[in-house]
Amino acid sequence: MPRTAFFISDGTGITAETLGRSLLAQFESVEIRMITKPYIDDAEKAQALVNSIHATAARDGEQPIIIDTIVDENVRRIVSTAPGFKVDIFSTFLKPLEEELATHSTYTVGRTHSIGQDDVYMNRIDSVHFALDNDDGARLNQYDKADVILVGVSRCGKTPTSLYLALQFGIRAANYPLTEDDYDEDGTLKLPRALAPYRNKLFGLTIAAPRLAAIRSERRPNSRYCSMDQCMQEVAQAEALYRQMHIPYIDTTRFSIEEISTRMIAEAGLHRRFSPR
Amino acid sequence: MPRTAFFISDGTGITAETLGRSLLAQFESVEIRMITKPYIDDAEKAQALVNSIHATAARDGEQPIIIDTIVDENVRRIVSTAPGFKVDIFSTFLKPLEEELATHSTYTVGRTHSIGQDDVYMNRIDSVHFALDNDDGARLNQYDKADVILVGVSRCGKTPTSLYLALQFGIRAANYPLTEDDYDEDGTLKLPRALAPYRNKLFGLTIAAPRLAAIRSERRPNSRYCSMDQCMQEVAQAEALYRQMHIPYIDTTRFSIEEISTRMIAEAGLHRRFSPR
Repeated sequence: MPRTAFFISDGTGITAETLGRSLLAQFESVEIRMITKPYIDDAEKAQALVNSIHATAARDGEQPIIIDTIVDENVRRIVSTAPGFKVDIFSTFLKPLEEELATHSTYTVGRTHSIGQDDVYMNRIDSVHFALDNDDGARLNQYDKADVILVGVSRCGKTPTSLYLALQFGIRAANYPLTEDDYDEDGTLKLPRALAPYRNKLFGLTIAAPRLAAIRSERRPNSRYCSMDQCMQEVAQAEALYRQMHIPYIDTTRFSIEEISTRMIAEAGLHRRFSPR
Repeated sequence: MPRTAFFISDGTGITAETLGRSLLAQFESVEIRMITKPYIDDAEKAQALVNSIHATAARDGEQPIIIDTIVDENVRRIVSTAPGFKVDIFSTFLKPLEEELATHSTYTVGRTHSIGQDDVYMNRIDSVHFALDNDDGARLNQYDKADVILVGVSRCGKTPTSLYLALQFGIRAANYPLTEDDYDEDGTLKLPRALAPYRNKLFGLTIAAPRLAAIRSERRPNSRYCSMDQCMQEVAQAEALYRQMHIPYIDTTRFSIEEISTRMIAEAGLHRRFSPR
């Protein structure tokens, strides 16, 4: 029987879940069912949740793990009656921080904090639309406005990465696909003319050929596009170009989109216009 | 002089930063400069960071706040020599969790945990491409595969929300713009024919007219499209349709994309195919 962990918040639940998953990821040998409960923001929802945690505890035969970031005092009090092993993030860290900063937190005085908007929102939206407008080499005339231009073969991860950079960090990422159209008469991939003026903005993505073939097969099975020969050849050409032109690059094969994006920011020294929350 | 906070990790830094921002958001009266330092994963980077924290402390005249999720023991030891008020997330919570789960964590035995890939990755990529292919009513024949179909007037937040749902939760969100093309001869917005078979998948977004006008002005200044009259009329028609058809909806005016997305998941009971980390 697996253990159950509840990530509980009176807001989005993102903080409780992010921390909870990181903590529990350190226990690979334990099977843990994880349940996020956001927007527990009144007494009624809190009581319903407590009842459901009681039922879970009875079914599991073990007390659940409860990780919460509830700010509202009344809700907190009700949730604290649930049976469980409790990781209380705010009360653990805010008291010592209050002493260090020599001030009271809004937590202890009982106000909730709302996520900022306006400038941040506009910036994100603009960045998302920039990524969409400049996806896959669709437009070539806005590269002067790009913070970074991702290059790489088709399906190596350019589009999801550029969207993640936009949504999470307000970074304007264009992307340009390296294809056989950019080969010279000797069959060697050259730096595409449209990118030449922006060499310092280029960031390459590469990927292991077998993985690329698997991804492309999902899209166009049994095509030349997804054949191992074709994938190997395209990847080798792209990597040769990166090395020749001193374009920094990342192998996306073993990395999540979070890792690719944060590594790019660190390596290319990109400026984040926006920080989540 | 503001205080400085460092969010330090040998991985992406997402956990340290998410928790750090949540904690510090509770101190609205204190000006805090926040710096994320991901991928501090060897002795050299750790020592360089310690030197930079020393310099920051000297400049600020106050010790920095240091929030970290470093797993590597050697790196942790070096970073611990930096001057600062330390919030050590892992050592605070993992010890008690080890006792509760009656097992050792990979943290204490010194292994790092890597973010899972493969199925998760494919799911995210598929969901992102689904959102792009089904953006703005571009395609009408894949709605049977959608987990949710966002409806709303132009620029109310459909596209960023559908992309966030895809990237963060692997949810397949199509979106359809409500425009004057969907008005009947009396000038009343009707449920578009393409959506009729999928009423149970619809989720509405609405927005305050002045905010919509501001957002549209950025795109097409001085147009009918961005005029207050036009925005008020479109929003009123959309909301009337939601009420008449019992389509659940959210007002995006005061909410971040994280809040809109997590509220939608909670209200519509959407199934998350993917959980970050």
